[in-house]
Amino acid sequence: MKKNLSMLTDFYEFSMANGYLQNKMADTIAYFDMFFRDIPDGGGYAVMAGTEQLVEYLRDLSFSQEDVEYLRSKRCFSEDFLSYIKNFRFACDVWAVPEGAPIFPGEPIVTVRGPAVQAQLIETMVLLTINHQSLIATKANRMVHAAKGRTVLEFGSRRAQGADGAVLGARAAYIGGCGGTACVLCDREYGVPAAGTMAHSWVQMFGSELDAFRAYAKTYPDDCVLLIDTYNVLKSGVPNAIEVARGVLHPLGTRLKGVRIDSGDIAYLSKMTRAMLDEAGLSDCKIVASNSLDEFLIGDLLAQGARIDIFGIGERLITSKSSPVFGGVYKLAAIENRDGEIIPKIKISENVEKITTPCFKKVWRLQDKKSGKYIADVLTLFDEVIDPSEPYTIFDPNHTWKKKTLENYHAFPLMEQIYRAGQCVFQPKPIRDLQKDCRERVSCLWSEVTRFENPHPYYVDLSPRLWEIKNQLLQRY
Amino acid sequence: MKKNLSMLTDFYEFSMANGYLQNKMADTIAYFDMFFRDIPDGGGYAVMAGTEQLVEYLRDLSFSQEDVEYLRSKRCFSEDFLSYIKNFRFACDVWAVPEGAPIFPGEPIVTVRGPAVQAQLIETMVLLTINHQSLIATKANRMVHAAKGRTVLEFGSRRAQGADGAVLGARAAYIGGCGGTACVLCDREYGVPAAGTMAHSWVQMFGSELDAFRAYAKTYPDDCVLLIDTYNVLKSGVPNAIEVARGVLHPLGTRLKGVRIDSGDIAYLSKMTRAMLDEAGLSDCKIVASNSLDEFLIGDLLAQGARIDIFGIGERLITSKSSPVFGGVYKLAAIENRDGEIIPKIKISENVEKITTPCFKKVWRLQDKKSGKYIADVLTLFDEVIDPSEPYTIFDPNHTWKKKTLENYHAFPLMEQIYRAGQCVFQPKPIRDLQKDCRERVSCLWSEVTRFENPHPYYVDLSPRLWEIKNQLLQRY
Repeated sequence: MKKNLSMLTDFYEFSMANGYLQNKMADTIAYFDMFFRDIPDGGGYAVMAGTEQLVEYLRDLSFSQEDVEYLRSKRCFSEDFLSYIKNFRFACDVWAVPEGAPIFPGEPIVTVRGPAVQAQLIETMVLLTINHQSLIATKANRMVHAAKGRTVLEFGSRRAQGADGAVLGARAAYIGGCGGTACVLCDREYGVPAAGTMAHSWVQMFGSELDAFRAYAKTYPDDCVLLIDTYNVLKSGVPNAIEVARGVLHPLGTRLKGVRIDSGDIAYLSKMTRAMLDEAGLSDCKIVASNSLDEFLIGDLLAQGARIDIFGIGERLITSKSSPVFGGVYKLAAIENRDGEIIPKIKISENVEKITTPCFKKVWRLQDKKSGKYIADVLTLFDEVIDPSEPYTIFDPNHTWKKKTLENYHAFPLMEQIYRAGQCVFQPKPIRDLQKDCRERVSCLWSEVTRFENPHPYYVDLSPRLWEIKNQLLQRY
Repeated sequence: MKKNLSMLTDFYEFSMANGYLQNKMADTIAYFDMFFRDIPDGGGYAVMAGTEQLVEYLRDLSFSQEDVEYLRSKRCFSEDFLSYIKNFRFACDVWAVPEGAPIFPGEPIVTVRGPAVQAQLIETMVLLTINHQSLIATKANRMVHAAKGRTVLEFGSRRAQGADGAVLGARAAYIGGCGGTACVLCDREYGVPAAGTMAHSWVQMFGSELDAFRAYAKTYPDDCVLLIDTYNVLKSGVPNAIEVARGVLHPLGTRLKGVRIDSGDIAYLSKMTRAMLDEAGLSDCKIVASNSLDEFLIGDLLAQGARIDIFGIGERLITSKSSPVFGGVYKLAAIENRDGEIIPKIKISENVEKITTPCFKKVWRLQDKKSGKYIADVLTLFDEVIDPSEPYTIFDPNHTWKKKTLENYHAFPLMEQIYRAGQCVFQPKPIRDLQKDCRERVSCLWSEVTRFENPHPYYVDLSPRLWEIKNQLLQRY
């Protein structure tokens, strides 16, 4: 089932890797950070996802003889390099944020330390993997947030941008809080519970809607959810569903589990449907709605008093339609020469927000002991330690007079090491636990950070030592 | 390299397929059409892509013992059905529009005829495959259109929604008219030419920008494209590039092939860069621009007189950012009973545009002989023939008094058969030919249809016989 993605890389990664080798930089150690600058949909937080697939990609990283022949055919790579590729053995250290954790602009979410040749080659897949799944986990979490405790299901495979978009998108949506998916392969591969009952074609395939409902109820008496909008929801769909609940399911000793509305004015139809079902003694029958919904429409429907128990979300979740790009980048932060000296590197830009933070770093997350809420993330040099038995003063890196001294807090490193000298040290978790981690960790954010409109920016600060080095480098240019 | 996608299906396809079998509909023949309702970005045309991957999916369609065990574990499928799945042999007829052809709302772009069980099961992948690639081919074609003859390259892998999003997206972008991709795997698998030179990390890895440029030029004297915005385009990047062209490349007998600008005010910087390069005798050096571009920004840059030879497009192409969903649907059009009688089926909706067109159909494309332009597409019953030696009157299906009689025209069926009774009859074409087909066929559209703002809707009409049947069915409800 798995495919080898080692060749899924931008061509320039090979050009540069070959160039490093040609220019006697085979032993140069590079430090790269993946970070992002903007949160999708102008939100206040994003959700990390894709770490496990990044681990798998790195585990499978190798090149076949055919790959080497392909590269040779390009007539631009040295035989030294082709030999290196053929005998490729991953040797980097990699740290990454665990899946389900909230993440914020400007902080490393993946850090890679290793031979420049290797750390460069993996750029494309590091970004692709984390960008894609973090995008969908973030979107799903917003929708779950909007649904206020109601179930959100992922229904978008048919509109996904490719097969991985469907399968891994459904995985990420589950981490972000979805109750399940329609995608069978995601269940089979990743254990995300899949379910589904009927499309309009089922109803059309029979002589009448009632015949179609009856046949379905007889086939699936224990799991009968009927699609009620093929002809007319209130005049035909609901009355026929009630008829089947009474005439077919009741004699079999089962109940009508749900009805689904996929078109029309969902607010109005759901309220009328609820009333008709309740009137018929079917108050336990759930109402599923599934027509081009997103977090804004969910909020709007609930504000109108719509009676929806389950939201089925298709294209607007699986593509994150209103904001379909997670803009993670992968930037050089330092290099280490043969003497082990670490030389910080910075990328200057006329756009101030595009300036990178140099050095081999660690990200600390500080949590208030009393409220349990996250207060700030602090980037330090890798060997700095924040000791929570001492007060710690954070300051705004752009407006350094804005300071705050913390006491009574926890401090923990945000990233975990997933590779050590090329060896996998990652401990996978059941996907259900990742969803739980996400729920618990997002609940540690203040509601001012999680709200959709004008969220308060979460603090991502620098330690005094790191700030000093960055400022010195900026002054130098 | 290929993975089996047979289990990439919505759960309800299995629920329905099992239900058809349980309800003695194993022999019922169903006719399904894939069509779409809205063109991405409010454009006047879309570009078909993904047919070849649809063919491959159908060729590989089969279920392993593990798949069957997985389904059995769900405790809702009959042993008859599990046995059917285990011995699955695809038996449908399938017609599809060839890749690169312009396609329009309301017309079938894929038609499937076969056992209801099978035609239902393949819904998700038919839609996913064609929706995804048609989305990206359409977006690429718009960008190529905006670039007015300049080269557009696909650079988006890192922001793609999954690995297939990257690789097949780059394939579709090439069909739509892109000159190449950064994605190595797309070159390796599909023959789309890949290329790429350096990122900012290359420049940062050396002691100075000039050192980095020199090293690159020595490594790749024949293919030297320098990224000139790591520090300052006009003060540092261009002067250093010129220095390298003179000091390194000239002595080696080669020329500086290009420079790339990836940030800042591209219009201004490209004009200044062009002037500096020309002044230095490097008028053959190309300028590549690559900073969050799309068709609107390309048009805007050219209107400002930007001096750009090659556009490198990332996230806004590979995700079709401004319109990231191609909304193809798959709807039942007819069923055939055991006597071979075809019973048309319609899906009614309160939204008039959601009403389907019933019957087993054929799509004819009518082309004016004199201008070579496409005039209209006409949906007919499958056995109807449009004979271009006779005048043919088309009429608007909603405003039937709007008529037009055509003479001196070609008429050809838009779809080709790709499967006959489960046997593949598809003739693959080299991808370069698909790009050529796209260019030629899109050039058969009037510019009123291809313009971005308020494009004129292309005519998709019904034959009188088909219109009559549809109207009768509508009256009946």
